[in-house]
Amino acid sequence: MWVQREVKLRPYPRGFHLVTEEIIRQFPEINRVNVGVFHVFIKHTSASLTINENADPTVRQDFEQFFNRCIPENEPYYIHTYEGPDDLPAHLKSSVLGSNLTIPVTNGHLNMGTWQGIYLCEHRNRASGRSLVLTLMGDS
Amino acid sequence: MWVQREVKLRPYPRGFHLVTEEIIRQFPEINRVNVGVFHVFIKHTSASLTINENADPTVRQDFEQFFNRCIPENEPYYIHTYEGPDDLPAHLKSSVLGSNLTIPVTNGHLNMGTWQGIYLCEHRNRASGRSLVLTLMGDS
Amino acid sequence: MWVQREVKLRPYPRGFHLVTEEIIRQFPEINRVNVGVFHVFIKHTSASLTINENADPTVRQDFEQFFNRCIPENEPYYIHTYEGPDDLPAHLKSSVLGSNLTIPVTNGHLNMGTWQGIYLCEHRNRASGRSLVLTLMGDS
Repeated sequence: MWVQREVKLRPYPRGFHLVTEEIIRQFPEINRVNVGVFHVFIKHTSASLTINENADPTVRQDFEQFFNRCIPENEPYYIHTYEGPDDLPAHLKSSVLGSNLTIPVTNGHLNMGTWQGIYLCEHRNRASGRSLVLTLMGDS
Repeated sequence: MWVQREVKLRPYPRGFHLVTEEIIRQFPEINRVNVGVFHVFIKHTSASLTINENADPTVRQDFEQFFNRCIPENEPYYIHTYEGPDDLPAHLKSSVLGSNLTIPVTNGHLNMGTWQGIYLCEHRNRASGRSLVLTLMGDS
Repeated sequence: MWVQREVKLRPYPRGFHLVTEEIIRQFPEINRVNVGVFHVFIKHTSASLTINENADPTVRQDFEQFFNRCIPENEPYYIHTYEGPDDLPAHLKSSVLGSNLTIPVTNGHLNMGTWQGIYLCEHRNRASGRSLVLTLMGDS
């Protein structure tokens, strides 16, 4: 069984955002798969996807602070600067965090741990809604 | 062909550990796939998975030292601190390294390079055995 | 539909290189898949794969400079040093960036964003051509 859908998330401010429900809601066919994999792909190079703690919002705040310090803006050696100080760091964050996720599907549900959720990582100061390609593959 | 199994690794101390054999041993069905992909997913947000050098244990020691320096404990700006100084860094390391791996299967074997192995990256000081979801998909 | 092929890229100098065309050219079967996923795996632990900006070469130059600063050579605490100063940092970069990519396939094409391309990240000063395992899975 193969089902694929391209969806557009609503715009999010710069930071880390829990989007598990917004994604699952758009893919009811997950309920029909016994054993499979759900693939999430973001079609951008200045936003990314990761899986992390889904309960305490301070984790997402600390993520934003950490990545801003680890991958700073305005480094004097940056050459690619004409799209603004947040642009090149956004590309770097995108490659460190990644643009694709694969999540097991078991008995009609995403088989993540109790504390796991899908983060949209928005690295630009201003961005419109990001496009995802969602692909469900498995045995129904 | 779709086969999926949830397994629990034995507890490991904080650090990077080669677990290729422990994982493969629990999935004899790999031998029956000609062309496929093996998916490994960790159901936790304070441990992670990566593929790296499988021969010299000093690589894994250097990994632990590098990530401890790059993602330090006790940063004054961390807000999410009530689960201990190793908790928020564990979440950050988990997103930098990743919680899912996809490995090609060819003629009944994981088709990794000679020097590649699967690392369990344990980021907490104390943790019980970690749960993985293993999914084999392919043409038998 | 499952198709798999092992290919060898030409040797690249240390740095980040756009290899989308070199990979797609070796996999004409992508044209026959309506809905699927294309899996790219690098069989090495001192080179890696990522998806990022495919237009301006200065992005790739900045990537090389950033990762060299973030994961420096000759740190006094490194133990694994006998393969040269670029070796252990190459392993670390490989795990931060990753060794596997999954890209959606839609109507016979890789369904990436307009500005996305596949980077080969060569972390060694000298390396011969890197081996990839390419796996196409999907509904034809």
